[in-house]
Amino acid sequence: MKLNIALLAGDGIGPEVIDQAVKVSNAIAKKFNHEIEWTSALTGAAAIDAVGEPYPDSTHAVCMAADAVLFGAIGHPRFDNDPTAKVRPEQGLLKMRKALGLYANVRPTFTFPSLIDNSPLKRERIEGTDLIILRELTGGIYFGERGRKDDGDTAFDTCTYTKEEVVRLAKLGFEMAMQRGKKLCCVDKANVLETSRLWRQTVQAMEKDYPEVTVSYEFVDAVAMRLVQWPSSYDVLITENLFGDILTDEASVISGSMGLMPSSSIGVHTSLFEPIHGSYPQAAGKDIANPLATVLSAAMMFEDAFGLKEEAAAIRDVVNKSLAEGVVTEDLAGKNKAYKTSEVGDWLAANV
Amino acid sequence: MKLNIALLAGDGIGPEVIDQAVKVSNAIAKKFNHEIEWTSALTGAAAIDAVGEPYPDSTHAVCMAADAVLFGAIGHPRFDNDPTAKVRPEQGLLKMRKALGLYANVRPTFTFPSLIDNSPLKRERIEGTDLIILRELTGGIYFGERGRKDDGDTAFDTCTYTKEEVVRLAKLGFEMAMQRGKKLCCVDKANVLETSRLWRQTVQAMEKDYPEVTVSYEFVDAVAMRLVQWPSSYDVLITENLFGDILTDEASVISGSMGLMPSSSIGVHTSLFEPIHGSYPQAAGKDIANPLATVLSAAMMFEDAFGLKEEAAAIRDVVNKSLAEGVVTEDLAGKNKAYKTSEVGDWLAANV
Ligand SMILES: CC(C)[C@H](C(=O)O)[C@@H](O)C(=O)O
Ligand SMILES: CC(C)[C@H](C(=O)O)[C@@H](O)C(=O)O
Repeated sequence: MKLNIALLAGDGIGPEVIDQAVKVSNAIAKKFNHEIEWTSALTGAAAIDAVGEPYPDSTHAVCMAADAVLFGAIGHPRFDNDPTAKVRPEQGLLKMRKALGLYANVRPTFTFPSLIDNSPLKRERIEGTDLIILRELTGGIYFGERGRKDDGDTAFDTCTYTKEEVVRLAKLGFEMAMQRGKKLCCVDKANVLETSRLWRQTVQAMEKDYPEVTVSYEFVDAVAMRLVQWPSSYDVLITENLFGDILTDEASVISGSMGLMPSSSIGVHTSLFEPIHGSYPQAAGKDIANPLATVLSAAMMFEDAFGLKEEAAAIRDVVNKSLAEGVVTEDLAGKNKAYKTSEVGDWLAANV
Repeated sequence: MKLNIALLAGDGIGPEVIDQAVKVSNAIAKKFNHEIEWTSALTGAAAIDAVGEPYPDSTHAVCMAADAVLFGAIGHPRFDNDPTAKVRPEQGLLKMRKALGLYANVRPTFTFPSLIDNSPLKRERIEGTDLIILRELTGGIYFGERGRKDDGDTAFDTCTYTKEEVVRLAKLGFEMAMQRGKKLCCVDKANVLETSRLWRQTVQAMEKDYPEVTVSYEFVDAVAMRLVQWPSSYDVLITENLFGDILTDEASVISGSMGLMPSSSIGVHTSLFEPIHGSYPQAAGKDIANPLATVLSAAMMFEDAFGLKEEAAAIRDVVNKSLAEGVVTEDLAGKNKAYKTSEVGDWLAANV
């Protein structure tokens, strides 16, 4: 099979971890007789420095022409404490999500038995955790009208949702739940927000089409608690963009394996696969970042974008092997030898 | 001293836990020679049932005439799954916050050494945790314009903040930080939201007036992670209404003592004191709810609303004594004898 993949390394540790995913993917392609054509393109602060904007048209064209996008991370601290900066890396991320129609961010949270004691939570709370948060990614307060009034002394942001947007996301949630534990939790703030009431109403109306799925409706504040208390009680959660942003990050620390968590964003035009850990600027350029989340994102890509399940399983197997044999970066090495980012990548590629 | 206190028991377990706080407060008043005048008034579902609205004018008048408000909880499951209900208990809560100008919700999170192992988090992660989240309570998306368009198929909510609202809240945050660990964290989503950029800008401009306070700016998604990872690294956090709703609930499970956490809401017209646990309908009427959070809220009231520090300390002492001697409700009793809500209240009142 010929796989046409756009490669957006982005900022911070992005390029380093992406390099390892490329090595592993190429090794897989060789083993299974596929041909991968990688097309690299600029995003984020890197793109601002090069061409003045974080998601240039040329990058969009590369993504549109690809079958899938493998993404590193975006963001640079230089922009963080400058609330008035006109161009910021994150704008590129948002523009890309909108332009590619990446409407559903899929964030699995699961435990690796060998890493469970890294979690800040007690073992008995997290054992068996295997949940997916499905975050709406192209609507809500991220994309509504915003601005200033009163000489800049009043600011506003608007959260908007349409019924179709909710249906599209919820449909995916119901379908995933059907493939899994048959439980769906709709997370909202329907006791306050009109958009949440639209969400709840819309999902309630869809329940009859999935009689096997048990649906619960929970307020976002309560879920923020229960995710820490009893993460293993959840199966599939669906929620709007901003709640999803907060809850997926919260959930990411539960398993103790944040450096290993992949994600995908399902799109109208293409799909995108990325590690959840972000650009982690403190580690950039040091060859110490954990590449496993990106490698596992590549596994998700093989499976979800190309239907190549065996290839995906082979990647997951070699990742498990590296964990079992202690071929890991310093975040997971404990008192044992820590491997470099590139060394882990080489080892994985050699062992697929 | 004469203490004029409005008593709003509200829904669910509210009346039961409020009863115990009244017993303890009366015992304290007797011991320290104060005279308390309690004036009860209806709120929440209870008020809807009685007079058709959740925060009637008569209740508002009682609060306005009082020096402080002691509050139980609001909310009833009967309204939760009916997104179209015209009158809901929570509207009363929001109306009350706005009418009383309760602009700052103060939520301490600290650990009780004897309860630390109740936490879902590991001991070494939470030991020493002593943080305060200061949540803006009368602005943001809770009070902006909202509605439907397109025959109801599009919904919107508006988040608005003015510079003065931010200054008022941040001032309190800086002052609290000065009394404590001199660290302030401003939690926002300034990489996306205009209101967050106003927050960040405004707080940045105030830094020079508090040169001793170390200020950090963190994104809400990152804080949702770090609260679980390293809660003890925080001192005072300030944030807008919705982020505060989510983060305070998340923080409440950290200490393992949710049933003990008090809160206050500082207002323009009066201040309000309430347990954070909510109406907990499953336990209502069973005389099993833990009254300690409400009793400790009364302690906050003695100290913050009336400047009666000794009285507050006496309440905290007797609460600690009840914990040490195992005079606790079933949530804390473990394998030992569980006391009833009312029995705990009686014991506390007898032992102040
Ligand atoms: C960088 C930021 C705009 C982004 C978001 O809020 O969506 C990030 O936090 C994420 O979750 O991918
Ligand atoms: C009941 C609800 C409207 C309320 C809120 O969101 O403010 C509650 O969650 C709280 O935190 O007091």
